[in-house]
Amino acid sequence: DLEEEITSEEVKSELQMSPTHTLFLSIAPSNQVITSLSLDYDNIENQLFLEEERRMSYMGFRCLEISRWVVCGLIGFLTGLIACFIDIVVEQLAGIKYQVVKENIEKFTEAGGLSISLILWAVLNFTFVMVGAIIVAFFEPIAAGSGIPQIKCYLNGVKIPRVVRLKTLVIKVCGVICSVVGGLAVGKEGPMIHSGAVVAAGVSQGRSTSLKRDFKIFEYFRRDTEKRDFVSAGAAAGVSAAFGAPVGGVLFSLEEGASFWNQMLTWRIFFASMISTFTLNFFLSIYHANPGDLSNPGLINFGRFEGDSVTYNLYEIPLFIAMGAIGGLLGALFNVLNYWLTIFRIRYVHRPCLQVMEAMLVAAVTATVSFTMIYFSNDCQPLGPESTEEYPLQLFCADGEYNSMATAFFNTPERSVRSLFHNQPGTYNPLTLGLFTLTYFFLACWTYGLAVSAGVFIPSLLIGAAWGRLCGILLASITSTSSIWADPGKYALIGAAAQLGGIVRMTLSLTVIMVEATGNVTYGLPIMLVLMTAKIVGDYFEEGLYDIHIKLQSVPFLHWEAPATSHWLTAREVMSSPVTCLNRIEKVGTIVDILSNTSTNHNGFPVVVQPAKLCGLILRSQLIVLLKHKVFVELARSRLTRRKLQLKDFRDAYPRFPPIQSIHVSQDERECMMELTEFMNPTPYTVPQETSLPRVFKLFRALGLRHLVVVDDENRVVGLVTRKDLARYHLGKHGLEELQLAQT
Amino acid sequence: DLEEEITSEEVKSELQMSPTHTLFLSIAPSNQVITSLSLDYDNIENQLFLEEERRMSYMGFRCLEISRWVVCGLIGFLTGLIACFIDIVVEQLAGIKYQVVKENIEKFTEAGGLSISLILWAVLNFTFVMVGAIIVAFFEPIAAGSGIPQIKCYLNGVKIPRVVRLKTLVIKVCGVICSVVGGLAVGKEGPMIHSGAVVAAGVSQGRSTSLKRDFKIFEYFRRDTEKRDFVSAGAAAGVSAAFGAPVGGVLFSLEEGASFWNQMLTWRIFFASMISTFTLNFFLSIYHANPGDLSNPGLINFGRFEGDSVTYNLYEIPLFIAMGAIGGLLGALFNVLNYWLTIFRIRYVHRPCLQVMEAMLVAAVTATVSFTMIYFSNDCQPLGPESTEEYPLQLFCADGEYNSMATAFFNTPERSVRSLFHNQPGTYNPLTLGLFTLTYFFLACWTYGLAVSAGVFIPSLLIGAAWGRLCGILLASITSTSSIWADPGKYALIGAAAQLGGIVRMTLSLTVIMVEATGNVTYGLPIMLVLMTAKIVGDYFEEGLYDIHIKLQSVPFLHWEAPATSHWLTAREVMSSPVTCLNRIEKVGTIVDILSNTSTNHNGFPVVVQPAKLCGLILRSQLIVLLKHKVFVELARSRLTRRKLQLKDFRDAYPRFPPIQSIHVSQDERECMMELTEFMNPTPYTVPQETSLPRVFKLFRALGLRHLVVVDDENRVVGLVTRKDLARYHLGKHGLEELQLAQT
Repeated sequence: DLEEEITSEEVKSELQMSPTHTLFLSIAPSNQVITSLSLDYDNIENQLFLEEERRMSYMGFRCLEISRWVVCGLIGFLTGLIACFIDIVVEQLAGIKYQVVKENIEKFTEAGGLSISLILWAVLNFTFVMVGAIIVAFFEPIAAGSGIPQIKCYLNGVKIPRVVRLKTLVIKVCGVICSVVGGLAVGKEGPMIHSGAVVAAGVSQGRSTSLKRDFKIFEYFRRDTEKRDFVSAGAAAGVSAAFGAPVGGVLFSLEEGASFWNQMLTWRIFFASMISTFTLNFFLSIYHANPGDLSNPGLINFGRFEGDSVTYNLYEIPLFIAMGAIGGLLGALFNVLNYWLTIFRIRYVHRPCLQVMEAMLVAAVTATVSFTMIYFSNDCQPLGPESTEEYPLQLFCADGEYNSMATAFFNTPERSVRSLFHNQPGTYNPLTLGLFTLTYFFLACWTYGLAVSAGVFIPSLLIGAAWGRLCGILLASITSTSSIWADPGKYALIGAAAQLGGIVRMTLSLTVIMVEATGNVTYGLPIMLVLMTAKIVGDYFEEGLYDIHIKLQSVPFLHWEAPATSHWLTAREVMSSPVTCLNRIEKVGTIVDILSNTSTNHNGFPVVVQPAKLCGLILRSQLIVLLKHKVFVELARSRLTRRKLQLKDFRDAYPRFPPIQSIHVSQDERECMMELTEFMNPTPYTVPQETSLPRVFKLFRALGLRHLVVVDDENRVVGLVTRKDLARYHLGKHGLEELQLAQT
Repeated sequence: DLEEEITSEEVKSELQMSPTHTLFLSIAPSNQVITSLSLDYDNIENQLFLEEERRMSYMGFRCLEISRWVVCGLIGFLTGLIACFIDIVVEQLAGIKYQVVKENIEKFTEAGGLSISLILWAVLNFTFVMVGAIIVAFFEPIAAGSGIPQIKCYLNGVKIPRVVRLKTLVIKVCGVICSVVGGLAVGKEGPMIHSGAVVAAGVSQGRSTSLKRDFKIFEYFRRDTEKRDFVSAGAAAGVSAAFGAPVGGVLFSLEEGASFWNQMLTWRIFFASMISTFTLNFFLSIYHANPGDLSNPGLINFGRFEGDSVTYNLYEIPLFIAMGAIGGLLGALFNVLNYWLTIFRIRYVHRPCLQVMEAMLVAAVTATVSFTMIYFSNDCQPLGPESTEEYPLQLFCADGEYNSMATAFFNTPERSVRSLFHNQPGTYNPLTLGLFTLTYFFLACWTYGLAVSAGVFIPSLLIGAAWGRLCGILLASITSTSSIWADPGKYALIGAAAQLGGIVRMTLSLTVIMVEATGNVTYGLPIMLVLMTAKIVGDYFEEGLYDIHIKLQSVPFLHWEAPATSHWLTAREVMSSPVTCLNRIEKVGTIVDILSNTSTNHNGFPVVVQPAKLCGLILRSQLIVLLKHKVFVELARSRLTRRKLQLKDFRDAYPRFPPIQSIHVSQDERECMMELTEFMNPTPYTVPQETSLPRVFKLFRALGLRHLVVVDDENRVVGLVTRKDLARYHLGKHGLEELQLAQT
């Protein structure tokens, strides 16, 4: 991989130069800049490929199509299994933990010495989080966080190294179990999306490079275009398993990844999502000893909103919109705080051991704060016969009552969300909810970005549900007459949507995810309005959380459209120039020199016939395979029996092409010639120099391009536009701004 | 419009030459071939446009964006209102009709002379259908049918004349009311999609050419790209109003129309859909004297599937799949019959008066058959206290009982569907259902394609629900022990999905529409599996109903991908050549001659500098505006004060550019010169001659192109690829086939 190492000193000096805005450095918890590669969509159509396609019959294409369906089914199945595994392990471990702590607290409530319970709780959390942080920080830093920014980048066409490897998946799964059981303010839903993507990248290739096993199947899929399609199916399957939202999953993949809409692809993605939900549902129904009951689709289930609580009136809609605005504000605050925190982390907390220590600190603080809040809370509620509390803590309450603050804190976050949505009116008092919102907000903000695998969906929902319920209670106390206000659960749902929307700023897919998770279509309109408001208000102050983290990773991420005011820029201004071109028959020495030269670090080289007339485009990776197999004109002549290079050789090398340094070329061989005609793409996309930026942008985005050759009106190469050239332009508050992207 | 008239003799001879397969003629009930224009996406980026964009500030773009949202909100609102209007009028008129007939039947049941009731019923139906058929056949033939094929074409980029005009909307709305009240086997849901599209096309332009009103707003949107985006929002709003399925609507638009996925656009489409559902819901709630109850979202509502009836077990899934296969078979049969019928209609029933007569015949037959079935049915069911029958017919049943066959026939189809889904087990006996399926199948098949406005969704659902319920009853009688089989409503739902899927072959969007209409996510997986099976089985025999009708319209419809085995074709083989090129400064006479020449009926002309070097592309419509305004070099010199031609002049002429014949150019003017530089698109997309067909196809589909210039390696024009050149290639059973498309 083309990663270059920058010493931490360099990173620091760079940070001091550009303190806030133009900081485009990795948030990865290691002292190196993440370098990214673009996925290759456009350039594989060389002669070898076309010949293979021509040889393939109609039936061959049908078989391929069937394999794609099989792969998608497998992706869905495995993603569902992983979700099921995480869910069951978390439930078991968390059950043991809370049971132990509860018994301990009950023991010491009477006798005094509750500090021992606190220490027990803190130590338990501490241990789990430590394990989770160590495996992430020391073994696979890329597994930190929810993985959604990384998957967004991948689907956008930017390949971040190691992001879809098996090792990452293993660390991610173990890490998320540890951090959720460790009582951090995190969710296990975000990481499912990453897990699904890794499963997809693995299954679709029919081999594991890490395990050195090649099953010799699905070889046709060993190229970026196909792999990316499967990864989008995997991400959808992940969303689907996490929220029981197959349609939401499809829309997530489309929103984040689609450029060119393809009906069959979407349909396959939907299939993967459905299978994933179904698998999770099926196995969980067996685990819950209720086989065949398929009504419990996702990891998080918002419970059933039915009966009176689902109705809303026209006059409530302005209230919902106001709550959306609050969500936008709080979300923007969350994002700003987290942005500062992330910069602080990049500067000072970049050693793995420091990161582990920070995670452990957070774990201890979370336990302490929770304990203190519960300890000082005097919100006692009667323990009804149909009460659904899993671990009711009596503490200082009277017999037959339980501590209401403990339902929120002394529980997995998923259960807390559900209880905020569905508990009877009056179960929480306003002070409890206010304090809970406040503390959980800061805890969640501090937690996101730690070197642990965890998501931000559930904490956001929980914060929102808490203040939403608070709003509902306040409204009910103001109006007090109408029964329609009586259900604070409805407001908890709206608050949850507002807060989540304010933080992540997803739109269509989030609406559908929320609707599917509530299992009720009636709330579609209010949820949509709330999410829209939250996004508009939030965007006024700060970008979405994922976008912030993507920006901090300095990847050439392309947004949907070119900035609106960029029409005056043309390809001429945007392109990199001059371009290193190769001749159709080129000296091996020249090629090796070009590839070794770090200043010409392009991945694609136009092939020209003199004088500079474009005739093709060849990729760095293709050249490397050619050099490795010594496909030299002279050798071909001397050894007639030599096997011709086939598409298979490129596929075997995919995706981990060796660096040029590892390929030995002797002095004699440097004098040989290489014939590129057969391996280059003979018809690369080109544009004239006067093409406007939005037009270039549209080509890139719609066709998933990586290189676009700029030619003059004689078809001579004058420049090359890459993703990075486009990603540089950004619409700031004062018009178009040009960013300084990190060199890769 | 570039329509050319072919006499009915020519049509007939063509039909006799190619009797079945290569019949590419209009199904429009007039004796002319529908000619279609491509929408223009790519070619408006000329200097005028770029200058306008450059002048526009950041705030200008924000305002535009806000206008887009406002327009989408309006589209949703108006579409919802129209749906509401149709629903209320149909319900009132049908209510009166059924009440009158019911009273008449009751009167004559005892006294004898039921034939008078039959005549009354038939005459009522007859009258309504006659009115509906007359307005369609004589005033706006394009309003016939559901309009979904036409909207599919429009979204695909093919503009069928008059399809989005106000007149079409009015006829459509009146027509659908007449045909539904007239008791035909039709639904009012399909036409909603067309209605939404017309509303969108009207509202977004800020003027009505038919009413000759220009509100001077939204002038920026007067071009094909923008208009098409709004039309897709309108179609989505239509689906959303019809089925209460906002997400389904979005997916429908995407499935049919999207090429390049755009997040903001999708989000706006969703907004329009939501507003549409909400508006319909809100006004219907007022109409039903229950204001504020927003739980009744669409025109068709499948009722709530709750409680025990929603659960299904793993072992039922193979049964569902088998039902999907049956649906596929029956759907294919339906389509084949309808295909033959349509060809018969094109040959022999192309005069408006014949069409009206056929429609009246169908109305009479429908009434007679229904009456006969009810008359001879002896399926009496007890009239329970909580029975929901609207018009229970006692007929020859005992007191306190009603005729079960009459629930299916003597009712609007929407109510019949709902009663098949939800009535208690035992409400229908198997013979009733079998007979009903059989007759309704043939009636629906005969009805689709008549010169009336009506959709095929509800009849399909009804047929499917009937045989699905039959399956459920049979299964229950075989197994009889397990209570899980007890609910035939579940099987009715699956059957309905299977039959609808087998006929229309939609995939993702239909799944979501069905899930949203049932208001229950649990059925997602079975419905998806059923629709997949129905599609696979059906596609083996015959295309989907809409595709058949699109094919019969001979429009250059582009599918999702180039045929798989078309890699060996290159742009050179596909392109039209030689191309008529214009010079940068061209003689007016030459331009007029080129435009008047019917053999060079291209809509785009490459502009070249000698020798044949490409420097731009100009559209027929642009040339016509230039000629109309006499933008000649000589005149510009002589009259210095002359106003410069602006973008506004093009927008004012859009979309009904006058034909070249209507523009008078004097002999002197023919000698003038026209300077095209400012008006042509200076950077048209080009490809080299060796580019493979799939690559060309992808460019067209992803960028929504209309013309692609093929150049040699000196940038000289060698050919032009248009939609028609691509649409010609079709994957038949024996590999790639080339179709003969009608000349336009």
